[in-house]
Amino acid sequence: MISVDDARTRILAALRPTPAEIVPLADAWRRVTAAPVVARLTQPPRDVSAMDGYALRAADGGLGAVLRVVGSAPAGHPWEGRLAAGEALRLFTGSIMPDGADAILLQEDATRDGDLVTVNEAVAAGRHIRRAGQDFSAGNELIPAGKHLNARDIGLIAAGNHPWVAVHRRPRVAILATGDEIALPGEPIPPGGIVSSNSHALAALVRACGGDPVVLPVVADDHAAIMAVADAVAGMDLLVTTGGASVGDHDLVQAALAARGLVVDFWQIAMRPGKPLMFGRLGDTGMIGLPGNPVSSLVCGILFLLPAIARLTGLPAAPPPVTQAVLGAAVAANDHRADHLRASLAQRDDGTLVVTPFGRQDSAMLRMMQTADALVLRAPHAPALPAGAAVSVIRLDSLGV
Amino acid sequence: MISVDDARTRILAALRPTPAEIVPLADAWRRVTAAPVVARLTQPPRDVSAMDGYALRAADGGLGAVLRVVGSAPAGHPWEGRLAAGEALRLFTGSIMPDGADAILLQEDATRDGDLVTVNEAVAAGRHIRRAGQDFSAGNELIPAGKHLNARDIGLIAAGNHPWVAVHRRPRVAILATGDEIALPGEPIPPGGIVSSNSHALAALVRACGGDPVVLPVVADDHAAIMAVADAVAGMDLLVTTGGASVGDHDLVQAALAARGLVVDFWQIAMRPGKPLMFGRLGDTGMIGLPGNPVSSLVCGILFLLPAIARLTGLPAAPPPVTQAVLGAAVAANDHRADHLRASLAQRDDGTLVVTPFGRQDSAMLRMMQTADALVLRAPHAPALPAGAAVSVIRLDSLGV
Repeated sequence: MISVDDARTRILAALRPTPAEIVPLADAWRRVTAAPVVARLTQPPRDVSAMDGYALRAADGGLGAVLRVVGSAPAGHPWEGRLAAGEALRLFTGSIMPDGADAILLQEDATRDGDLVTVNEAVAAGRHIRRAGQDFSAGNELIPAGKHLNARDIGLIAAGNHPWVAVHRRPRVAILATGDEIALPGEPIPPGGIVSSNSHALAALVRACGGDPVVLPVVADDHAAIMAVADAVAGMDLLVTTGGASVGDHDLVQAALAARGLVVDFWQIAMRPGKPLMFGRLGDTGMIGLPGNPVSSLVCGILFLLPAIARLTGLPAAPPPVTQAVLGAAVAANDHRADHLRASLAQRDDGTLVVTPFGRQDSAMLRMMQTADALVLRAPHAPALPAGAAVSVIRLDSLGV
Repeated sequence: MISVDDARTRILAALRPTPAEIVPLADAWRRVTAAPVVARLTQPPRDVSAMDGYALRAADGGLGAVLRVVGSAPAGHPWEGRLAAGEALRLFTGSIMPDGADAILLQEDATRDGDLVTVNEAVAAGRHIRRAGQDFSAGNELIPAGKHLNARDIGLIAAGNHPWVAVHRRPRVAILATGDEIALPGEPIPPGGIVSSNSHALAALVRACGGDPVVLPVVADDHAAIMAVADAVAGMDLLVTTGGASVGDHDLVQAALAARGLVVDFWQIAMRPGKPLMFGRLGDTGMIGLPGNPVSSLVCGILFLLPAIARLTGLPAAPPPVTQAVLGAAVAANDHRADHLRASLAQRDDGTLVVTPFGRQDSAMLRMMQTADALVLRAPHAPALPAGAAVSVIRLDSLGV
């Protein structure tokens, strides 16, 4: 058996980001940049007014001064002359400053009378003027490669005058559930069989980390049928199987795919829930074999599949994000297997996050897994801890899983 | 001027969730249920073994007992007979318990020899048996209406034997930027003009809260052109405009759309950044007018548009999610306008979230907004606070904005 961290490190070391593709900015949300985004223009392009008012020479803007208004320059309609002594130009937020002017008289500090304007509050040179390039200049790197794009990133890329952006292709992830006893929802259920939740739960998890899931039909415990899957997944970035990875009597996946060239890296992890886990490579397609138990499959999906897909999308190789919290109830000492306690979360008024493991940690109960807000990480041989002790947790809600 | 909370309350009160549609489970991630999801079967469907081993009568399972193995029942291949005294049935995790049996002998506690099996560890009645309906029973509500579906929810819906689910239609949100001086990225820039980042940033924000954005072409400051937008947005759930809502000289949107039936509810909010804000209704389409300034537009988008779209998707009427944190640096007393300080976030080892507002809060600098992790909420007339004081923050990263 190997540890959770070792297993994840091996998986991540074996995966590379998908190639780049160009997408319109409108489709770039939550994609990962494949190259730095560099500004194609300077913002603001020239010195501009930060307010509505009048441009003038600071020397002309003493209290009570009266200036002649020589024109108006709304944003988008610049005034191309040169402002002389005693002159003012009407302008607005974002209007380009005319040559010769170095100060702004605010609209609310001015009295307008025909072509004349009176200064009711002395101006200061440079005040209320945004300098060219104050936000960024052409050639500046706006966004690095490997950035998971949010709405603000996309705004900044647009401001840099890019209508499209280079991102990593969404990883294609095939999902295969095996077993004589299972059926996808809505399909005929074999005698004594059950409906498989794994395929759809894992497909949603794949979406949550930016992949494109392909749910394959359920394959029975049949050597030839499993072998045929190798053809179906050619060109996929990752094959995820559920079931068929334990040491039980009915585990054909490994043997059947080995006959098609599967190289297995390991398949037992010192963890709970979810001990049986496989990782390997089937030609150019990575393969992760998850447990058949739905709770174990989800926990292993969060610990291994989520970072694997994130890596394929171009994000750095890293474990799922971990948050610190304090225990709302005592926990017992742990055995030699890393444990992942299903738990509820609450926040105290002072901001402290309180995590309370459920009293019952039954990996057969999907409904309790669905109710959880977080997984509490318990290292192998971790000591008993009292309520109030600090622990590391994986927040499920913010991951979309 | 009205407060941020009053404005949001009025907007949310005026909006209703979109109608329901049925989508395949594979497309249901991050959708919002339009009706409760009720289990269509019982899970487990009958009493099943939780482990690999042998079913037997507890009375037969004393230490050293020898039983006759009458058959094997892999999951999906139930054994339909009735187990008699002295008999055992080979079974596996998930196998249905045969009639007559009430105990499990674990595989690792058994020695098999041909048709016989010896008990090396006394069994206990009921142990390692999962009862029918332990997870849920047919008719149980699995997921309520109005739930934002994550991967675990989708797994539970699948386990309840639903291949599809009723969710609210994605809200259709039209985005309109107006102004003589602006161009979308990649388009010709007018003299003295700038590239508009608002349309694409807001489109990404719409996606982040589950809507389908439609970016309309930029419309110049022209009465007839703006009026024509009313036709383009018929059938949309929401029209979002940027620019044209201030009290400046170039604000035609309100007047032009009023000529087409726009009813304006209000348009000045006591907040910073982003004072000018419009809300109204254009026929069946709600309308939110955001400021033209990109930072103000994003902040107002987070405060007003995000909850509005969430409401349209079927989520409860609520403000954006707020987290408690402590200040990493002192802040000055606030004036009469609610402030939203751009800030960085860090977590201490004890789990405390520390939020440090940027020294410069310039609403002209999109790049600083892009760098922020959070907005610190400062109520009108909030007193000065020292480092270490508790404050409320909106986390931007977890919202995807």
